[in-house]
Amino acid sequence: MALDRLIEAIRCKDNPTVAGLDPRLEYLPDYLIKKAFAEYGETLEGAAAAIEAYNRELIDALADVVPAVKPQAAYYELYGWPGMRALSRTIAYAREKGLFVITDGKRNDIGSTMEAYAAAHLGETEVGSRSFEAFGGDALTVNGYLGADGIRPLLEICRQKDKGLFVLVKTSNPSSGELQDRLLDSGETLYRRMGALCEEWGETLPGKYGYSGVGAVVGATWPAQLSELRQALPHTFFLVPGYGAQGGGAADVAGAFDSNGDGAVINSSRAILCAWKKEEGCPPEDFAGAARREALRMKDALKSVR
Amino acid sequence: MALDRLIEAIRCKDNPTVAGLDPRLEYLPDYLIKKAFAEYGETLEGAAAAIEAYNRELIDALADVVPAVKPQAAYYELYGWPGMRALSRTIAYAREKGLFVITDGKRNDIGSTMEAYAAAHLGETEVGSRSFEAFGGDALTVNGYLGADGIRPLLEICRQKDKGLFVLVKTSNPSSGELQDRLLDSGETLYRRMGALCEEWGETLPGKYGYSGVGAVVGATWPAQLSELRQALPHTFFLVPGYGAQGGGAADVAGAFDSNGDGAVINSSRAILCAWKKEEGCPPEDFAGAARREALRMKDALKSVR
Repeated sequence: MALDRLIEAIRCKDNPTVAGLDPRLEYLPDYLIKKAFAEYGETLEGAAAAIEAYNRELIDALADVVPAVKPQAAYYELYGWPGMRALSRTIAYAREKGLFVITDGKRNDIGSTMEAYAAAHLGETEVGSRSFEAFGGDALTVNGYLGADGIRPLLEICRQKDKGLFVLVKTSNPSSGELQDRLLDSGETLYRRMGALCEEWGETLPGKYGYSGVGAVVGATWPAQLSELRQALPHTFFLVPGYGAQGGGAADVAGAFDSNGDGAVINSSRAILCAWKKEEGCPPEDFAGAARREALRMKDALKSVR
Repeated sequence: MALDRLIEAIRCKDNPTVAGLDPRLEYLPDYLIKKAFAEYGETLEGAAAAIEAYNRELIDALADVVPAVKPQAAYYELYGWPGMRALSRTIAYAREKGLFVITDGKRNDIGSTMEAYAAAHLGETEVGSRSFEAFGGDALTVNGYLGADGIRPLLEICRQKDKGLFVLVKTSNPSSGELQDRLLDSGETLYRRMGALCEEWGETLPGKYGYSGVGAVVGATWPAQLSELRQALPHTFFLVPGYGAQGGGAADVAGAFDSNGDGAVINSSRAILCAWKKEEGCPPEDFAGAARREALRMKDALKSVR
């Protein structure tokens, strides 16, 4: 089961960090952009080439430090189909380097449409007598507002292809409570209900470390809810965004881990990607080195709370 | 305001139908697939080329009958980056032919990530000193589970670029009630709350026909909720999926319209796309003609209930 592979990679590298690959052009050193523009012009292809080069260096520098990367689909769609090509190449390269890839797409739909997303991101696409991995991630983030019809089409592909899901439960943003914190007539909050559904959906994908193939997204900015959900959802592995730039610190995510120090992977995007801009005296050419040093600092910080 | 343009197009063509462009390879006539494979092989490029050719013929045949098309992003992502290129080319071609394009992506995220989706699908992408429409739709479907932080980043682009949104409120699938029908402690259902947020978010994008730039997705499979929401959300235009293949008929969607016959656009995908398979004696080469005839039948059926 795919989240078993993630758990093993976290243990092996002793680091529950996932590096978010959210390559906004302004995060990239100028020289990378100039080089790509010189080859492809100021075009979507040029931007996508710069992003791809940036991601490859980051992946090289991070591959022995972090167990996983999480490309955010929006920053690739922003550059149209060349951006989507950069996404698929980035995913392929990261997997080649042994990294677990969580595609952050927050996809959602029903029935055969959700099956198409599942095949695109986690499975294979049949074309005539052949089949291809269109994007080829190890796990996909999804939005469960549509109920089981939006999740069940993924479970079969997860079982067949050894892949995982992360369902949005309690998101990191300030307004997440607008709907997610609302009390239902049953007395539970909406996020708690969504979490309970994750436990239910995960029953068909049991894992050997107690966590199912259906994980949950719970923001680092809500430490109390992280602890509450860790207790309430013993079989649901957490993907925790909001660490670092969004304000969550190591102490805030302590509640995401179980008594073995398992149970969660913590995402950091901007702090790792832009470390070269913050590190005193760091030349732009060493952006990947700075990212690696930040990932190591994060590993140490998290060690103290696991 | 973009939904004004949609309303005008519906009035002009006297047809509140949006044709869903969900090009599953099995919907295509064999000869189109063979032709594309002959040129590009059994590859993602080959599949995408077949889909693009199919869409172009459909758009040619439908352009004077329907006001809008709705490409479903999942069926393009399924074919990787060549599929996404087919999506952007399909959107460009449909707009060239004067059609309003609703990109059905159900995207959702927060802050600058949602801005990236907004720029990708409704706005422009800056690359150096230039800017490009990455996908270039007129409206985008979105999922509001993350609250206002996931919607506000889109409103500014909608205002600047004359674009619209459709927020999932009550979806057409059988399990939509699992979460959406739950009663909140306030006594209202979750879908009703989401609808009320659409009214609130729409206040900043008023339109000249009384409907704002923030629409709602409400399924044809829930006639009672359609009528309830039409009453409760007087400024929210509806995108209604679930007509035809999913079981909704003309009588079921009657409640979606206001007393002027405005207020909603009804989607049909499979019934239009696969009309050539159902029409007796229809040669595969006339797939687009059959689609047109089905769209005309739908126009007549809807006329009786508006």
